[in-house]
Amino acid sequence: MVRAKTWTLRKHFEGFPQDSDFELKEQELPEPKDGEVLLEAVFLSVDPYMRPYSKVRMKEGDVMIGSQVANVSSQEHRAVYRPATEVYSSNMPTNSWSVTEEPSSPTWPEPFPFACFRLTALYGLTEVCEMKPGDVVLVNAAAGAVGSVVGQIAKIKGCKAVGCAGSDSKVAYLKEMGFDEAFNYKTVSSLEEALKKASPEGYDCFFENVSCFSAREITQLCSDLRCIGVECKIIFTFFDNIKARCSGPYVHPQLLFKQLRMEGFLVYRWKHKNEESLKQLMTWVKEGKLKYREHITAGFANMPRAFMGMLKGENTGKAIVKA
Amino acid sequence: MVRAKTWTLRKHFEGFPQDSDFELKEQELPEPKDGEVLLEAVFLSVDPYMRPYSKVRMKEGDVMIGSQVANVSSQEHRAVYRPATEVYSSNMPTNSWSVTEEPSSPTWPEPFPFACFRLTALYGLTEVCEMKPGDVVLVNAAAGAVGSVVGQIAKIKGCKAVGCAGSDSKVAYLKEMGFDEAFNYKTVSSLEEALKKASPEGYDCFFENVSCFSAREITQLCSDLRCIGVECKIIFTFFDNIKARCSGPYVHPQLLFKQLRMEGFLVYRWKHKNEESLKQLMTWVKEGKLKYREHITAGFANMPRAFMGMLKGENTGKAIVKA
Repeated sequence: MVRAKTWTLRKHFEGFPQDSDFELKEQELPEPKDGEVLLEAVFLSVDPYMRPYSKVRMKEGDVMIGSQVANVSSQEHRAVYRPATEVYSSNMPTNSWSVTEEPSSPTWPEPFPFACFRLTALYGLTEVCEMKPGDVVLVNAAAGAVGSVVGQIAKIKGCKAVGCAGSDSKVAYLKEMGFDEAFNYKTVSSLEEALKKASPEGYDCFFENVSCFSAREITQLCSDLRCIGVECKIIFTFFDNIKARCSGPYVHPQLLFKQLRMEGFLVYRWKHKNEESLKQLMTWVKEGKLKYREHITAGFANMPRAFMGMLKGENTGKAIVKA
Repeated sequence: MVRAKTWTLRKHFEGFPQDSDFELKEQELPEPKDGEVLLEAVFLSVDPYMRPYSKVRMKEGDVMIGSQVANVSSQEHRAVYRPATEVYSSNMPTNSWSVTEEPSSPTWPEPFPFACFRLTALYGLTEVCEMKPGDVVLVNAAAGAVGSVVGQIAKIKGCKAVGCAGSDSKVAYLKEMGFDEAFNYKTVSSLEEALKKASPEGYDCFFENVSCFSAREITQLCSDLRCIGVECKIIFTFFDNIKARCSGPYVHPQLLFKQLRMEGFLVYRWKHKNEESLKQLMTWVKEGKLKYREHITAGFANMPRAFMGMLKGENTGKAIVKA
């Protein structure tokens, strides 16, 4: 019998999440039945999507959504999966231990850093933006988990990568990751000028990674007939001080005259391609072409703190909780 | 020697166009040289695009952009083109007479109503919205030249057509044209409720025909993974009383969760398909499937009045000036 800790959503987030919105519960787990396995959380992933999704997919009292890397711990399965073989799942939320259906195959077949499991970055660029060699690719929140992978894939595919982030140390990190140009959007005097300086030739693809970041300035600098991939994290919408960025004149005139395409996407749309796509990402990691940094918070108990810190932009690289 | 009247742009429009922005000039035309023809304007088309395009494509003093149906009047060409054969051109602006290069073939090969020359409607639905039988198609400014053709093509292609317009008589006209549902957006108490009532099953394609019409309400009612075709006329942006509609919270969250695509387009993108597309439209007209109404203002001298009236929505159907 195992006692599992579980983070639940005590109260739906109103504005910025607070400690009191979370509640840590404990429960005894049943023994795994036939076809089930016992999993021990090793790392939890805290990601921006958890905030808006909690509103649309959960009710108060539910276990907080999330994803984790876990060890398969049932004795009878140790022969099948090597001891400490890690399984990745987006179906095991924020539990320290879980009993779950035995995966038909280990979904995490070889060592692979959590930080690079960024199919969103890959699909956004290839499927939505239809990026071609020579394109200029802009990404915001560029020093986060998805953003830094976006810039690196753009470079791998022969594009120019421009990133913006919210601190000078993040800008330095972007340069380290191989971005051609990077700037701190909080300190530039004019966003439009900073964008023009970073790419006087304009932009072909904009990976909108934040929610509503200055659509007007960016669409004005886009090339004709190109694309904005909207992978909104809906972070900024609840920071009052930059709320202005999230509303304003509609961008219809720019969309029209430049014949731009602005498309929202969810990573699940291309799940039939996941196996092949993960292999591609793994290859780039092994070849040293895809680098990463992890921002690790220790302790299962600190999940809410890690989550809220990530929303505030405290992390450079992938925000992870070591359980 | 022929004296031609010409409408010029005296001053770029600031806000809503005014009489004083236009100037009627007269000039003597040179005799047509070899390979040129003399054309006499029969009908002028006044269209919303002329307003924003004047800003980006013209300088003050230029001949006002536009398109017309003209008679080929040079004696030597009467044998080639039957007397009173009409030529359509978007390269002959608002002149009463023009000397122009002889078209390699009559671009207006058989009688075809101006009102149905709406390639924008066809391409927006088929190329941008990728409309499929069974879709619910919404169009605004539905009683105008493009809007009424949008709804009728939707019906021809086996879709449900919903239109909104700004007066009860326009709504009646839409019903006459075969729209399944139509409402007066100026008198409904809630746009969201009106949209829900017209199509409880939601919307698959939105032909955005105005500029910035309530993007929020409409995206909320869109089906997942569908499209908004933006053929902005940029009319409403300069009516102060509904300016509020042209700015507001960005629609990124709706684009994301529903994975919507919002795309601006200009009709020229598919000009390689024009011949085949015009044939299709002509066939529908002959079969009685594509109906139209013309709103005719008499007199070349009344072009500005007809243009401004059209911007105010005074027309039901295609706004035309009889020269």
